[in-house]
Amino acid sequence: KNKKHVVTANKALISTYGDELLALAEEMGVMLYFEGSVAGGIPIIHGLNESLTANKIEEIVGIINGTTNYILTKMTLEGMEFEEALKEAQDKGYAEADPTSDVEAYDAVYKLTVLSSIAFGTEVDVKKVYREGITKISKADIEYAKELGYCIKLLAIGKDNDGVLELRVHPTLIPYRHPLANVNDAYNAIFIKGNAVGDLMLYGKGAGDMPTGSAVVSDIISILRYNINSTNKVSLRSNYWDKEVASMEKTVSEYYIRVAVRDVPGVLGDLTTVFGNNGVSLYSVIQKGKTGDDVVSVVFVTHNTQEGSVNKAIAEIKKLSSVKDVESIIRVKSK
Amino acid sequence: KNKKHVVTANKALISTYGDELLALAEEMGVMLYFEGSVAGGIPIIHGLNESLTANKIEEIVGIINGTTNYILTKMTLEGMEFEEALKEAQDKGYAEADPTSDVEAYDAVYKLTVLSSIAFGTEVDVKKVYREGITKISKADIEYAKELGYCIKLLAIGKDNDGVLELRVHPTLIPYRHPLANVNDAYNAIFIKGNAVGDLMLYGKGAGDMPTGSAVVSDIISILRYNINSTNKVSLRSNYWDKEVASMEKTVSEYYIRVAVRDVPGVLGDLTTVFGNNGVSLYSVIQKGKTGDDVVSVVFVTHNTQEGSVNKAIAEIKKLSSVKDVESIIRVKSK
Repeated sequence: KNKKHVVTANKALISTYGDELLALAEEMGVMLYFEGSVAGGIPIIHGLNESLTANKIEEIVGIINGTTNYILTKMTLEGMEFEEALKEAQDKGYAEADPTSDVEAYDAVYKLTVLSSIAFGTEVDVKKVYREGITKISKADIEYAKELGYCIKLLAIGKDNDGVLELRVHPTLIPYRHPLANVNDAYNAIFIKGNAVGDLMLYGKGAGDMPTGSAVVSDIISILRYNINSTNKVSLRSNYWDKEVASMEKTVSEYYIRVAVRDVPGVLGDLTTVFGNNGVSLYSVIQKGKTGDDVVSVVFVTHNTQEGSVNKAIAEIKKLSSVKDVESIIRVKSK
Repeated sequence: KNKKHVVTANKALISTYGDELLALAEEMGVMLYFEGSVAGGIPIIHGLNESLTANKIEEIVGIINGTTNYILTKMTLEGMEFEEALKEAQDKGYAEADPTSDVEAYDAVYKLTVLSSIAFGTEVDVKKVYREGITKISKADIEYAKELGYCIKLLAIGKDNDGVLELRVHPTLIPYRHPLANVNDAYNAIFIKGNAVGDLMLYGKGAGDMPTGSAVVSDIISILRYNINSTNKVSLRSNYWDKEVASMEKTVSEYYIRVAVRDVPGVLGDLTTVFGNNGVSLYSVIQKGKTGDDVVSVVFVTHNTQEGSVNKAIAEIKKLSSVKDVESIIRVKSK
């Protein structure tokens, strides 16, 4: 309201009040720049707003929380359990004393909200983003995933399916040869699919004073360099339109499902019958455990399936007398 | 001279006459944009010119030729020899009938010239860039590299060591866990080290009509959007100053060296003595071949060494009676 340009790195602010603030900036004839609010020094906002303007963005898939990526990397490369890796992240200053915002994925939801709004040209309500943290991921899941050719990452996923959005943050198995699989420690990376540019990925340090400072200063320089003002700036919001957000029940994914079963004859048949009856087709099955163990783990990977069908199958599986527990359900990025 | 802005994707033009043309554009008060001239749809020029303006760029390492990356990927993942992989690249339209510009790395030299000029703020003479193609890389080298934990990529490397530049394009062994190691097929990627942002990598399709078109159109939109003209544009060249280019003899790297030796007692001792006398310290040695074979291969990986010392050692090794041939010398990116 004082007619000054504003540069900020505050993601909670932008994801919650960004639309309102951008409208006010337009009205006042000033700029609101916020490159540092998502993924630190990675020029993703600038990339979407300036370099990919010829594209319709179809998909964004990102590792945009450094703390959880550090924890998952430690679990993967050093065989730690979640609690141990979290403690090391806290000791090294990568995680806060109360790690909820990171490990329960609130932070990643904020950032996905900002990215999706720009990429898909629409207002995005932060409360409509599906959220699932990494606290339930165990060393056992990471080892099964490795055996199947995957690693586990916390992914933020935004898709625009002809105007209907999928917006979700959750742990995901990703194939070892995917470019996101080598994004380790506290690094961030954002994978973008545009209709002209194809697959594009930006990788770098997602946090820290210097990387975030790099983004903030570049925003300031851009405003100065182009003397951006009400006469020559372009409204980002002029291209916005309303888009629906799909319910999770209707999203499609492959799934990794780990079930603890009593080692009795016919149990595998019972399970595969339930999957089949619900239209869930299986891609691979691993059964482990020594003969004579009371309880063994069975791991299934499904083909692409609607989440609604998987949920129905899981509900039935939980009722089987031969099943002790459904230990993990993790989405899988196709090979 | 007609006072029109120009957008081009012509890398040979920009790398050879870019400085002259940029000076003319400044004089005429128009813009010369060339995002599409390097790495297709990857917004690397824009990234360096706009998003990393707060940084002193220390290093650029890129896979910026899709044809050679396709060939090396086929050799690595499918065990092909160079000639076979080249033929497949030609059949699929990734390589031209005369593949010289790609496989002898002229194309990558052009692109590195453009990138280095912008990143390091200096005029770069395309003729001062060291160039080595991939035609001598054999399946055997790729297999030894794999055993040692590396893959082989054609890298374009630019470094600014306090105002003295290293500019070189050559095949390089890179560790499997490096983000560039998963850049396969015809994809490109550019790894940047900035003093504030740290490590940053941009990955995407380096060629093709649509990715290059994405870059060209984004340049046009930028010019239109900001009404860029002589009053508000910024001279890129105003920050340029002269920088020396280091001779290759003085560059430092680890080296992979494969030597064919006659299987006689003491040969390994002869070789290691020559390395030691020239100040070349060894990191690992692999010797293979069945007992009774006349000639066996010995593979050395050195610690960081000046190229001059390696060249002296190689010259002496070639004179040893127990040595049949020095089969390969390939630089190695440190783990």
